Amino acid sequence: MSGRAVAVVGGVTTKWGVRSATWPELAQEVGAALFRAVPELRAEEVDSLFVGAAEPERFAFQSHVAPLAAEQMGVRPHRILQRTELACASGQSAIRSAYAAIASGLSDIAVAVGIEKMNIPSMAEANSSMGCVMDRMWDGPHGATAPPFFAMVAQRHMLEYGTTEEQLAAVSEKNHRFANSNPSAQFHEKSFPRDKLLRLPLIAPPLRLGDCSSMTDGAAAVLLVGEESARRFTDTPAWIRGTGQYSDFHNLAHSGSLTDWVGLKTASREALRRAGIGVHDLDFAEVHDCFSISEIIEYEALGLCGPGEGGRFVADGRSSIGGEIVVNPRGGLLGCGHPLGATGIGQAVEVFHQFARTVPPARQVPDPEWALVHNLSGSANVHSLMVYQRGGAA
Amino acid sequence: MSGRAVAVVGGVTTKWGVRSATWPELAQEVGAALFRAVPELRAEEVDSLFVGAAEPERFAFQSHVAPLAAEQMGVRPHRILQRTELACASGQSAIRSAYAAIASGLSDIAVAVGIEKMNIPSMAEANSSMGCVMDRMWDGPHGATAPPFFAMVAQRHMLEYGTTEEQLAAVSEKNHRFANSNPSAQFHEKSFPRDKLLRLPLIAPPLRLGDCSSMTDGAAAVLLVGEESARRFTDTPAWIRGTGQYSDFHNLAHSGSLTDWVGLKTASREALRRAGIGVHDLDFAEVHDCFSISEIIEYEALGLCGPGEGGRFVADGRSSIGGEIVVNPRGGLLGCGHPLGATGIGQAVEVFHQFARTVPPARQVPDPEWALVHNLSGSANVHSLMVYQRGGAA
Repeated sequence: MSGRAVAVVGGVTTKWGVRSATWPELAQEVGAALFRAVPELRAEEVDSLFVGAAEPERFAFQSHVAPLAAEQMGVRPHRILQRTELACASGQSAIRSAYAAIASGLSDIAVAVGIEKMNIPSMAEANSSMGCVMDRMWDGPHGATAPPFFAMVAQRHMLEYGTTEEQLAAVSEKNHRFANSNPSAQFHEKSFPRDKLLRLPLIAPPLRLGDCSSMTDGAAAVLLVGEESARRFTDTPAWIRGTGQYSDFHNLAHSGSLTDWVGLKTASREALRRAGIGVHDLDFAEVHDCFSISEIIEYEALGLCGPGEGGRFVADGRSSIGGEIVVNPRGGLLGCGHPLGATGIGQAVEVFHQFARTVPPARQVPDPEWALVHNLSGSANVHSLMVYQRGGAA
Repeated sequence: MSGRAVAVVGGVTTKWGVRSATWPELAQEVGAALFRAVPELRAEEVDSLFVGAAEPERFAFQSHVAPLAAEQMGVRPHRILQRTELACASGQSAIRSAYAAIASGLSDIAVAVGIEKMNIPSMAEANSSMGCVMDRMWDGPHGATAPPFFAMVAQRHMLEYGTTEEQLAAVSEKNHRFANSNPSAQFHEKSFPRDKLLRLPLIAPPLRLGDCSSMTDGAAAVLLVGEESARRFTDTPAWIRGTGQYSDFHNLAHSGSLTDWVGLKTASREALRRAGIGVHDLDFAEVHDCFSISEIIEYEALGLCGPGEGGRFVADGRSSIGGEIVVNPRGGLLGCGHPLGATGIGQAVEVFHQFARTVPPARQVPDPEWALVHNLSGSANVHSLMVYQRGGAA
């Protein structure tokens, strides 16, 4: 790849959950937090702003959100200003755009921010809006919104491989336990106690309340710069070493298999190849556990275990601290909540702080050098990945 | 600027107007047109797709439109897939993203497509949706949707400089006349006859029907590649030589002046500086005439004439063929209609075909070498510009 090296050199999140703050107020809050966390950063040197937001038009009746975010955050971009949308992967899209802009020389100092306000007065309106991330013409009329679709995926995985409800619960248990040490998270272990996970209400069988990520309000922001100025901001830049993305289909009828996520296999191979490492070199991964079944299939598609072995992989503790790779130390979407456009940014914030060793000990990955971030969007038809490497002291 | 050179090497539009086609059908139609127009292009070599769309969530109740467009166009992006949104400048945002991706080496062959479907069964719903490109919290409650805002701008310009209704009509007349030779345009001269322009219904005084761009369905697509493969596709690549963008404010209360568009001055200086030319080197410009008054102020902010002289500039024929610079030979937003996300792409298509000399003689700019494309968005608070140079035969 040509272009100069690019790193994430700072990152913050607001508290995620059911918030009274409006969309503009979340933008203001995350902007203030960023400038507090990175005192070396002057507002006027932020030349570009990339805003990840999935559906502000529906949740907040506001389009053209990029200049709104700029105004609320106190920056005045003079190189690139745009919002990126890729449904649940909108945040990572913003980071990818910032990365390309800096690598190409179009930008020198960029902020990628993710903001979503999903808890609104009419939750019926909010829930129906969520449905429009799926194909509305062909899949919508058949009831394929997110929970029924991922329930179908889980049922198929159980049928093909004997995956159990206990194994699904093991994903939820692990991620809510990690969320205990993340004060920004929407939920903690006490919200979903281990002994009750299998008795929680069914949302779409076999998925129970604890298997599903939530409607969440929240924001997160990261600062990205080119190699020449990374050390100005941190001793431990998170270098972007590889990216991969694949769009497989849109209409579900064109999907080859519910449980074999070809797009993730293709995109992760590409991202790791560009980074020059193999999957077993990764110290931790932030993957898209929108539902517990997603994380199980992601282990398999990433090659951390064989097809059908994902359930045992998590139940045996192989994806927790002390296992082969730590998956979702931040608490995942299950623990942190899933403010659509903010999720991908929140994951990158975790990578930065894991590398900087500034997270609480209970979720600190020992001595991390390589990390992977994954987002899926829609009906798991698009997969987006980034590989980060920790930079040592200069 | 670092990074390799990038060119637009092909482009198409669908027919723009009130169409029976749905959003996905417009995507399919423009994809088929692109592959017909560029027979050298193989679907599998399109590695990235950037989709400019302003409000599909509201107009089409569909989010996650990037993979939907990919599927309908018959491409399977494996580098970058995303939608970009910047309200009325969403299309140019898609081109800018493709440009950065190719310049950085992340992409080699990219398509930027703009699609908007605005004529829907409930035009009341469509019109209210249009309103959410303005600030909904502070400006919306005061009635500041697009026509009243630009009417206020026009009234102020008349007050400050003596600009007349006849001068506003001269913009509309010129652009509808150019649209006569553009079969893709929504309107032609006969829809807005010269002698009737000043008797058309008032929309928001002083703006009449002929002063306002329309609700339009349409799509457009351009092919962008790096320097190493440009000659494979065309003898006359449209090289991107400069870009500029500036975000001035969001809430109208923070605007310094209604008639002095500081953001456009700043962004155009930057774009021309990067291209290494002055404004008088331009042979033609595609500017954002969402309302007739916009084009008049754009002449002034670009430095084509002095402050307050924009009305006389157009009335004296200085922005038509035979004048100092040809402005909006495509027919502008007034003539072509304004399918929000498609507009910026349609302007780039015009640049490509002007350089290739494949437009009808009535709108062909003589011997063009340099062109500028401008979009504004929201309450003229964000301005986005690109400068193109015609490449000669290899």
